[in-house]
Amino acid sequence: MKLATLADGSPDGRLHVVSRDHVRCAPAKAAATMQALLDDWEALAPALAVEYEAVNAGAGASFDPAQALAPLPRAWQWLDGSAYDSHGALMEKVFGIDPLPTWPPLIYQGLSDRFHAPMADVPFPSEEDFIDFEGEFGIITDRVPMGTGAEAARDHIRLLVQINDWSLRKLAPREMKTGFGWLQCKPACSAAPVAVTPDELGEAWRDARIDLPLQVDWNGDRFGAANGYQMSAGFDQLIAHAAYSRDLVAGTIIGSGTVSNDTYRAVGSSCIAERRGIEILDHGEPRTGFMAFGDTVRMEARAADGTPLFGAIDQKVVKG
Amino acid sequence: MKLATLADGSPDGRLHVVSRDHVRCAPAKAAATMQALLDDWEALAPALAVEYEAVNAGAGASFDPAQALAPLPRAWQWLDGSAYDSHGALMEKVFGIDPLPTWPPLIYQGLSDRFHAPMADVPFPSEEDFIDFEGEFGIITDRVPMGTGAEAARDHIRLLVQINDWSLRKLAPREMKTGFGWLQCKPACSAAPVAVTPDELGEAWRDARIDLPLQVDWNGDRFGAANGYQMSAGFDQLIAHAAYSRDLVAGTIIGSGTVSNDTYRAVGSSCIAERRGIEILDHGEPRTGFMAFGDTVRMEARAADGTPLFGAIDQKVVKG
Repeated sequence: MKLATLADGSPDGRLHVVSRDHVRCAPAKAAATMQALLDDWEALAPALAVEYEAVNAGAGASFDPAQALAPLPRAWQWLDGSAYDSHGALMEKVFGIDPLPTWPPLIYQGLSDRFHAPMADVPFPSEEDFIDFEGEFGIITDRVPMGTGAEAARDHIRLLVQINDWSLRKLAPREMKTGFGWLQCKPACSAAPVAVTPDELGEAWRDARIDLPLQVDWNGDRFGAANGYQMSAGFDQLIAHAAYSRDLVAGTIIGSGTVSNDTYRAVGSSCIAERRGIEILDHGEPRTGFMAFGDTVRMEARAADGTPLFGAIDQKVVKG
Repeated sequence: MKLATLADGSPDGRLHVVSRDHVRCAPAKAAATMQALLDDWEALAPALAVEYEAVNAGAGASFDPAQALAPLPRAWQWLDGSAYDSHGALMEKVFGIDPLPTWPPLIYQGLSDRFHAPMADVPFPSEEDFIDFEGEFGIITDRVPMGTGAEAARDHIRLLVQINDWSLRKLAPREMKTGFGWLQCKPACSAAPVAVTPDELGEAWRDARIDLPLQVDWNGDRFGAANGYQMSAGFDQLIAHAAYSRDLVAGTIIGSGTVSNDTYRAVGSSCIAERRGIEILDHGEPRTGFMAFGDTVRMEARAADGTPLFGAIDQKVVKG
């Protein structure tokens, strides 16, 4: 099943079912908003699946991703992991910090009150803060009771999403050093237009990981195409870690962290900072600058046969 | 103006105006929920002020704080500061970490999808995680545009609240060391039943700080009564810091951090960890244990003349 939220002037937008080929869509009848669906997934999803088959059979109107908001335009909780060890190791080079243990999983609580629409301009206060993109995969859960383990957590993964976790890198070392985590460094993220149920990925959804490359283009040039599978903790384990001392509210979004592979020299990177880390390894200093106002970034993951999955994030950064 | 949210079976509850003496209340006519009010404060507050005078004049029914949820039962954003230097210095002793710079202000992004009701039992997974309370003051803003400075921020402080920021202390050092901030260590907070406009505090609201003692009782014994004024950054400065790279959504709650005074030997503490820090200074080791299941904590701040302000947080911790 594929779902999108189209702008209707309200903060939550209007939930739509989207055809498998992303050509058609129709307003969902079973639930008006994504949050309403996640609050009552078990009861509402079967009817929505019928509506999905109808748009696949030609019902509805054309789907225009430029009209899409983030699938869940505001969430009660956004938890972002850092589950790719090759990314972590490079970031430690960039920030000049000691290696962090990779278990238990690294997760921070992020700003959740808005996710930028996939084609919206994204405002930042200053280029001097070192504007960076971070291509990620993510999942959305229904309600997860406190104490849920990793195996049981898998049944709570209702939707898969694709995210750009914007970062202001210059602010990161100071905020990390306090131990309080990121605040100024991590403004709102962006999301690709379409959320999909795990079955849409077929074999590419395995071990609670997404086994597909995330293609990242900066100003039209391919920057990376790292595969999502190489997480040291799967989404099931991220959920279990987060749910240790809290119920996870329905509509909790959990991110993978910047998609990264240990073959980064071959596949490229999903953020600029990581490339700078490679340059430090190779040349003793970073050579690639960060984003300038007017720069664009595009991110998309497709199925192995080219079928679209999440649609694309395709955005420009602007002076806020 | 004094406001509370009473349970009505929905997650957002029903907004009520509460009389100055906390004896009477009436369902708000101008807005059904606290979030609806904060989304449109300027337009709705004048009518609500008229309703407030009516309950002060005897309209409505009796107010029962046991029926109250948190004033904003779930928030799109919860940002908790750590603005009391005496608290920070003691916590550095407890955690055995190097002193942190106190400027710019320390703020972390916390779990906001629920705030426990003031008299609800609070579930935790294990006593072995070192359950601690943290008595705080807080503010609730309307929408704050990115880049708002401290002076302009004052006009966005719509309500004052009183909060217990529950902490699992054993988990804190590891989570701080990662630089990702707290996750398991910081489950949902609790809030006192009544939110008040700043004018209700009279002279006790000054320099965007609350100049009143917060009385904290653990299992019925007075544990501390530290005054809220001694913040190294006022709430106006906390807002400006948080709004550097993001718009603050209407209904953002910002906490002061654990209320603490440099006269802590005289006034006591607002959390157990701080007392343990004093014991480390005095005896070379902590002597006070953390909370056990069945323990209670009560927190209340009143005006100098004894008038109730926020009502009381009065809770028991239980096995979750």
